[in-house]
Amino acid sequence: MVRIAKIKIDSLQVHQYYAALKEQMQAAIAKEPGVLTYYAVADKKDETSITILEVYADPTAYQTHIQTPHFKKYKETVKDMVKSLELTDVELIATAMKPAE
Amino acid sequence: MVRIAKIKIDSLQVHQYYAALKEQMQAAIAKEPGVLTYYAVADKKDETSITILEVYADPTAYQTHIQTPHFKKYKETVKDMVKSLELTDVELIATAMKPAE
Repeated sequence: MVRIAKIKIDSLQVHQYYAALKEQMQAAIAKEPGVLTYYAVADKKDETSITILEVYADPTAYQTHIQTPHFKKYKETVKDMVKSLELTDVELIATAMKPAE
Repeated sequence: MVRIAKIKIDSLQVHQYYAALKEQMQAAIAKEPGVLTYYAVADKKDETSITILEVYADPTAYQTHIQTPHFKKYKETVKDMVKSLELTDVELIATAMKPAE
């Protein structure tokens, strides 16, 4: 299950938001077998415009994810930082990457 | 160097486009040291709406990439399939993923 999240954040809380996001991502990858990959990027021209590519093993893994303490902590931390959130379910066409060394 | 490409393709040539894209991605990863990662996805509600996350080692690697025979072949193959192309330069905030097994 792959999803793209587009998030607009408060320009006065950019670095606080980035820190909360990183903490959530690292906890989910470390603790949840069904959370596989996150890529979080910010537009070069607008650091408040965030895109996150999220890969879960399946929809059940995602439903489990949103009930975890680390995800709930993230949502609580960022609730006044996030100005808009748009989630798009996508299908993987293909991925290609260098093998890990 | 990370970039997001948003591409709209002709609805009559979806599978031809996907095939050309996969061929280009696989060739670039196999042949070019500076092409690191591609994730290509299609909106579940609209298979003609494509998003590609592209990771290059640096801007020079990207400039080298667009001069390669496989990239030029891709551009020629898809020139009548692509209806619009929007490129956004982004900064990586963070990535997290399961270690390869």
